[in-house]
Amino acid sequence: MTTSGDYELYYWPGLPGRGELVRLVLEDAGAEYRDVAREPGGVAALRAILDAPGGVVPPLAPPVLKHGALIIAQTAVICDHLARRHGLVGDDEAERLAAMQLMLTVMDLLTEAHDVHHPISSSLYYEDQKPEAKLRAAAFLEARLPKFLGYFERVVAAKNTRCLLGAHSYVDLAVFQVLEGLAYAFPRAFAARSAEIPQLLALRDRVRERPRIAAYLASPRRQPFTEQGIFRRYPELDA
Amino acid sequence: MTTSGDYELYYWPGLPGRGELVRLVLEDAGAEYRDVAREPGGVAALRAILDAPGGVVPPLAPPVLKHGALIIAQTAVICDHLARRHGLVGDDEAERLAAMQLMLTVMDLLTEAHDVHHPISSSLYYEDQKPEAKLRAAAFLEARLPKFLGYFERVVAAKNTRCLLGAHSYVDLAVFQVLEGLAYAFPRAFAARSAEIPQLLALRDRVRERPRIAAYLASPRRQPFTEQGIFRRYPELDA
Repeated sequence: MTTSGDYELYYWPGLPGRGELVRLVLEDAGAEYRDVAREPGGVAALRAILDAPGGVVPPLAPPVLKHGALIIAQTAVICDHLARRHGLVGDDEAERLAAMQLMLTVMDLLTEAHDVHHPISSSLYYEDQKPEAKLRAAAFLEARLPKFLGYFERVVAAKNTRCLLGAHSYVDLAVFQVLEGLAYAFPRAFAARSAEIPQLLALRDRVRERPRIAAYLASPRRQPFTEQGIFRRYPELDA
Repeated sequence: MTTSGDYELYYWPGLPGRGELVRLVLEDAGAEYRDVAREPGGVAALRAILDAPGGVVPPLAPPVLKHGALIIAQTAVICDHLARRHGLVGDDEAERLAAMQLMLTVMDLLTEAHDVHHPISSSLYYEDQKPEAKLRAAAFLEARLPKFLGYFERVVAAKNTRCLLGAHSYVDLAVFQVLEGLAYAFPRAFAARSAEIPQLLALRDRVRERPRIAAYLASPRRQPFTEQGIFRRYPELDA
């Protein structure tokens, strides 16, 4: 038998990244966890779990969650696992599937937001792909961002509870984080879209005010967005 | 109560695409299904289910599976749902999580393989982003492809059963399809890597020879790769 205190999160320190979607679930659940790679010697521990993890299959990349004998990778899988244990998704199979469907759509948006500044290769510096990044940013802000935001807005509006699935779930936490990231990276483009997404902004505010989330956001455990992460404030890429 | 005959798959006709990962699960399971968008009037039916789907949450994009009252989107979620009903993933929760982790990693590779020919925007033609595609292709073939193939090779080799999870699962079907797509799109680069992935090629051959898969591949239900799909044979993007 395992307890919440057995959770160990492994993710690159110094940026919120995909690991933040896991942190938000752990924090909202009130779960105890170690954020291993942010401890002294933690990056070596992160590398060790990537190299010789144990578990059913090895992870390809962080975030990784160690939970007793379970070692899980892929952000959406980790969040789904935690959410079921902590009441952050319904027990009903149809709702679990719908939550995962939405979560994977959030992850698609996250990947596209990242690729805006790395359209050629994640192995190259941004400075080595700036002209291509400008082209990709324009296409993202014109076509993809409104498509994703419009979709999530319709989903929230249909439920009329400031929740994507009718009741609060881990997917709301993920959408909250992505909205914060988009507002950070693309302040002008995001402001220009704000009038189109009243329900999404209401969801964001609702999540922000949840007591455990509010306490977390005010704590040193919360890391700011920076130009090392998925969401980067490069003014030349904004609208 | 629903039966297998209640399955309706909705995916763009004329290309295998992400829909093919669902078809392979349905075919390997011996399930009856309608491939709705390939029927007369089917594209209108596909558009209709995107516009007014019913279900818990609407899909953003195909593939969509209708299964009785359930309407599910996101390829990995559909495959997981079908696999559990048809014995193509273990009942054990740890194995289901591991399968989904691998499946999402396959989907990541699929997305990157697509973005090789559309690095700037999926709304633009390939012809309008050819210089950028050449840069992205070189980075993909040099850094990303060996990273993904090496990872899956290690996973298969660790089990020593020509299966990613020890026993045959839906993830093997997905990897099979991606290997076929990579060999189609990048024949020179794929051939150059083949000596490094003996276990993956053995898995591919094993899947190919499964009786229902072999019958499917020989049938008109199987669609060839074309330059409309995820995997495209553009010689200028190959090694």
